[in-house]
Amino acid sequence: MKKKLDGTNVLYPTPTTIVGAVVDGKPNFLTIAYIGIVNHAIPYLISVSLGKVHYTNAGIKENKAFSVNIPSENLVMETDYVGIVSGKKTDKSAVFEIFYGELGIAPLIKACPLNMECRLYDTYDTPTHDLFIGEIVETYADEAVLSDGKVDITKVKPLLFDMSSIKYWSLGDAVAHCWNIGKKLKKKR
Amino acid sequence: MKKKLDGTNVLYPTPTTIVGAVVDGKPNFLTIAYIGIVNHAIPYLISVSLGKVHYTNAGIKENKAFSVNIPSENLVMETDYVGIVSGKKTDKSAVFEIFYGELGIAPLIKACPLNMECRLYDTYDTPTHDLFIGEIVETYADEAVLSDGKVDITKVKPLLFDMSSIKYWSLGDAVAHCWNIGKKLKKKR
Repeated sequence: MKKKLDGTNVLYPTPTTIVGAVVDGKPNFLTIAYIGIVNHAIPYLISVSLGKVHYTNAGIKENKAFSVNIPSENLVMETDYVGIVSGKKTDKSAVFEIFYGELGIAPLIKACPLNMECRLYDTYDTPTHDLFIGEIVETYADEAVLSDGKVDITKVKPLLFDMSSIKYWSLGDAVAHCWNIGKKLKKKR
Repeated sequence: MKKKLDGTNVLYPTPTTIVGAVVDGKPNFLTIAYIGIVNHAIPYLISVSLGKVHYTNAGIKENKAFSVNIPSENLVMETDYVGIVSGKKTDKSAVFEIFYGELGIAPLIKACPLNMECRLYDTYDTPTHDLFIGEIVETYADEAVLSDGKVDITKVKPLLFDMSSIKYWSLGDAVAHCWNIGKKLKKKR
């Protein structure tokens, strides 16, 4: 028996990210799990949805650049912190040690094992949120989270956000290989 | 030391979904993990990114409706199967038992514990993908995945997709409460 949930969004969990941008001349960061994958081929496009009330939006629009940083479990306190205090009132520029990449204006977080440097490709306007669509200019990874040169998600230990429990969750075990386990059913049918 | 990864998308894991639509008069399903959260307020908007080569795109455009179904781990074989065979060659209308909701044209999968019925709100065009933005008209949940009337993600057991390992992963343990653990740092600063 199905129960109706009034159109609640149940598209969870999503990876928790820390979005960085220069605002009023200073690096600023905020926590965003309303993310998306837009185009999975060149140009590689991802999206972050920021409520229009946020302080960061103006900086992204002005500089046409932002970063999407993936924190590990060990950064949960800092990740949550930059999500609960606003750049309008609090200077968050010193929370993280940062570096800049090719664009020179998207602040990237050293302590995050993965960083995507994005050029603002487009802004999709919605009634309450700016959906910033970024073209990934470069991706930076700590060697510690790589295995054979590829990202090893078990080493990344991402923080997975769930809106219903309002908790960050860890990644569990592998269930199956994609584009493979379904072949069994293909043979049967 | 950071290593450059040539602009690879590392925004993972994402929840694996099965997107449903009526195509050429028949229900069709395909697996999509290139999802997104677009607007987190009324209208609740989510996105699914479908390569333009897919069979389903025409059906979504024609009927202006689709479903986003969340499979549990026990459906991993069926989930993978509808991702590796194309509706162009294979009739997938009988893979799942379905039901229809308010729109009457978005096929919903009974066996998936969570289903979002979406009206096509907009199509954002990219060079290789159609980003279908859906307004959630209604959400359906199995009572078995609810606790106190709310979605209990530990009961949903979603399949989390990671592009680097090309595996489905399970959800692990809770790490911390959101908008809470960061308060400790707020006091310190």
